[in-house]
Amino acid sequence: MPRPSMREHLIEAAFDRFHEHGFNGSGIKDITDAAGTPKGSFYNHFDSKESMAVEVMSRYARGRQMRMLADTSTSAVDRVRAHFEFMSKDLEQHDYARGCLFGNFGAELSTQSPVIREEVARRLAGWESLLVAALGEAQEAGALASDADTALLARFLVSAWEGAALRAKITRNGTPIDDFFAVLNSLLQDAAPADGADTQNA
Amino acid sequence: MPRPSMREHLIEAAFDRFHEHGFNGSGIKDITDAAGTPKGSFYNHFDSKESMAVEVMSRYARGRQMRMLADTSTSAVDRVRAHFEFMSKDLEQHDYARGCLFGNFGAELSTQSPVIREEVARRLAGWESLLVAALGEAQEAGALASDADTALLARFLVSAWEGAALRAKITRNGTPIDDFFAVLNSLLQDAAPADGADTQNA
Repeated sequence: MPRPSMREHLIEAAFDRFHEHGFNGSGIKDITDAAGTPKGSFYNHFDSKESMAVEVMSRYARGRQMRMLADTSTSAVDRVRAHFEFMSKDLEQHDYARGCLFGNFGAELSTQSPVIREEVARRLAGWESLLVAALGEAQEAGALASDADTALLARFLVSAWEGAALRAKITRNGTPIDDFFAVLNSLLQDAAPADGADTQNA
Repeated sequence: MPRPSMREHLIEAAFDRFHEHGFNGSGIKDITDAAGTPKGSFYNHFDSKESMAVEVMSRYARGRQMRMLADTSTSAVDRVRAHFEFMSKDLEQHDYARGCLFGNFGAELSTQSPVIREEVARRLAGWESLLVAALGEAQEAGALASDADTALLARFLVSAWEGAALRAKITRNGTPIDDFFAVLNSLLQDAAPADGADTQNA
């Protein structure tokens, strides 16, 4: 395996700093110290902390394994559940202290940085599109009623997940995430065909 | 009316700064400049920016008119809806750019400041209690089924509202709030008695 470049070291260090301490709570020196590089090295690799944050978001997105949502080897409804379960495990591993990087940046920086606000909006919209596609697939397979509003459901799930991750960060426990799953199950049940048939899992 | 004290001016200025630019994005000089007071005046009134933030949260909580939730002159379910409508108007007035101060502080500061994290947790738990009480009242009046889990519903509504306010801050439009109301109505309908009777509004 090739040795990670200094640029990669810096992105990794920034990822941890930003996720735990926020953007404004992380100085460039904090990041270069954590990466074990001289402060001056930062500007050899990045134009600004802001452009570094955009790269950190790209790295974070990769770690969320969005492709799970498009993997048609299991039923779409199961995939949506498994996807949120995967992200729940990730929050739990950090004792719920980190929350979602997209939500954190959105809350902290939406006024301060149009570039970051737009990147967060784009990332969440991309996630939402994958959810809409999976829910649409479930609908075509008859696991969701033909009149279920899958676009609204996908949008709501993204916002509600962000709220649950945020509240778990504040309470430092998994209760808000458990609540999310309870309501997710109830919403999927509401959206199920009225005759209760689940042809997808039949 | 007595002239607001310098302390009040400082809290008001900090409220606007913190809500729009976040805690770390607001220097003490930004706050004293906005209040039109010398920078040195800050430490005559506050021990730290953190203790000022706690007072700002108290001011924010008052503005959210929580007592609406306890006003028994209208039905409890109507009150819950009116309460969220009131907060929705407040977000709209600022073009959705500010979000919820509690959520913003929770996202930005939960790692950095245990004092602020605990105060945010306390404020959100207080809000949740008022929602539990209103939903319990609706349940006693027969507007919600006797087996509806009002505690879970109240907890979920707080988290989902925070997520909706956060996403609206990112998208700069009211769609996430509209989605919240659509799901709120569906959850209240799910929790309604099976026979469809709404004795409270009868």
